[in-house]
Amino acid sequence: MNKHVATVFAPASVGNVGPGFDVLGLSVDGIGDTVTVELTSSPSRIVSVTGRDAELIPKDVRQNAATIAALAFLREAGDGREVAVSIHKGLALSGGMGGSAASVGGALGAALALGISPRTDQLLRAALAGESAVAGRHLDNIAPCLLGGLTLVRSAEDLDVVALPVQERWWVALVTPEIRIQTQEARRILPVQLDRGDWIQQMANTVGVAAAFMSGDAELLKRSLVDVYAEPRRAPLIPRLQEVKQAAAAGGALGCSISGSGPTVFAIAQDEASAHSCAKAMQKAFHDVHASYHVGPIGRGARAL
Amino acid sequence: MNKHVATVFAPASVGNVGPGFDVLGLSVDGIGDTVTVELTSSPSRIVSVTGRDAELIPKDVRQNAATIAALAFLREAGDGREVAVSIHKGLALSGGMGGSAASVGGALGAALALGISPRTDQLLRAALAGESAVAGRHLDNIAPCLLGGLTLVRSAEDLDVVALPVQERWWVALVTPEIRIQTQEARRILPVQLDRGDWIQQMANTVGVAAAFMSGDAELLKRSLVDVYAEPRRAPLIPRLQEVKQAAAAGGALGCSISGSGPTVFAIAQDEASAHSCAKAMQKAFHDVHASYHVGPIGRGARAL
Repeated sequence: MNKHVATVFAPASVGNVGPGFDVLGLSVDGIGDTVTVELTSSPSRIVSVTGRDAELIPKDVRQNAATIAALAFLREAGDGREVAVSIHKGLALSGGMGGSAASVGGALGAALALGISPRTDQLLRAALAGESAVAGRHLDNIAPCLLGGLTLVRSAEDLDVVALPVQERWWVALVTPEIRIQTQEARRILPVQLDRGDWIQQMANTVGVAAAFMSGDAELLKRSLVDVYAEPRRAPLIPRLQEVKQAAAAGGALGCSISGSGPTVFAIAQDEASAHSCAKAMQKAFHDVHASYHVGPIGRGARAL
Repeated sequence: MNKHVATVFAPASVGNVGPGFDVLGLSVDGIGDTVTVELTSSPSRIVSVTGRDAELIPKDVRQNAATIAALAFLREAGDGREVAVSIHKGLALSGGMGGSAASVGGALGAALALGISPRTDQLLRAALAGESAVAGRHLDNIAPCLLGGLTLVRSAEDLDVVALPVQERWWVALVTPEIRIQTQEARRILPVQLDRGDWIQQMANTVGVAAAFMSGDAELLKRSLVDVYAEPRRAPLIPRLQEVKQAAAAGGALGCSISGSGPTVFAIAQDEASAHSCAKAMQKAFHDVHASYHVGPIGRGARAL
């Protein structure tokens, strides 16, 4: 294998995981972006972009998240070389399944192409550079995509992210209706101030979600996966959300909410079969709004292919 | 043993546990209130109140939390008898170490005197009846006092409380300066609305605290036990709080903040010896404000003696 090139698979992820706004994230295996980074001496360029929404991905290296992340990693590592980047998109742009994956792929790809074992904070910083160029400074998708499993962003400012040990091999259904929501637009409709009763409830539910994953308490997850902040306000952006949630619950889901800022809706299920029935029921509940779905286990993080 | 009388030890507890406002609670063994409940046919009465702050405890059965809780339990269980209650206080009134203990003692005492194995929700409801009469409807001390360990109040309204499995046998130092703070006064100084950046940080820290206890991650606890809501606003009520916190940190504490609404300040330590050094250093840092301390392991819940 050429030491100056590396290919990375960066998985999908669910931001917020219900109540954990900007704080929790969950990686979902089997679907994601694949990024190849080659170190070059000629000017940086994008070799190819294929796959889902490829036509919408910026081809200018100064605006392409994967390339920005790769170059940010190299510069911090003190390497002055340029990159040739190929991207195969498995994730829809602005789909709410973790568009950050390409940034993580770029950062980790650059590290592996250099042949070094990067520190987490180096990768986070480089991925964040890519992410900031397209969707703002958030770590709640970058962290699970990089570390796998359920992650806590303890402090975005301090790049303090923690992989929370997950007890059960639960599965995730991701159902994406064919509508677009811009992350920044979806944030604008949220109030900056919140009443104490609401944030205390949100905090209690978020601890409940984290504790449920850590202890494998399915009943606790059912009671806790309730978002009183973003979901009620973003619900009007997603047609038939209530019917989709009811379909997930009827299908045996342990919880269901908007993934990140949407429009993808996720459900947690106890096993693969249950995740499949939930996904199908949710797809059907979207009715005349066409929706695609993916089902995967709670995943490992980004890795070399 | 007479089936119509029972004596219960109800331990101290730390409300909030730093950032977990109204949500987390931690029981501390070795100090608490002892409540004896005897079922009688004569009118309810208080036989004796001894121990710390005994002179400040209401002797009127209609205002005494332990008695109210005991009678509430009996009535819900369909028993029409009255009670004779004896209380030995180990906990200061309005000390911030869980004045709710007597309510839990009254409720559990009544159940054991009846000879039944009560459900958690029955005990919570009865203890809450006692607590509401003196300090408002909060479960963040009742839950740890009853269940032991670290507890999550997922919903006070639904009486949904969860004992979170704790990994390490950490110890707690409780240092109580000789000043008084009324719980209701300490709440009045807190704003009802909070900016998103603040509650997200509070939420992230609270998940961090819970996850640290659940996984035994001491470093995570150190970074997470930060309260950006109540502590900065209540700090002026507690003389030398910053010096006390610095003394705890220098003594090796994994975290230090105000217990409940104060004035007790708590510190978490990795073992008994470390908890003792923290307690002594904190006591000393209170300087000319006289302070007493107690050191105990994360405790079991209320139990028959």
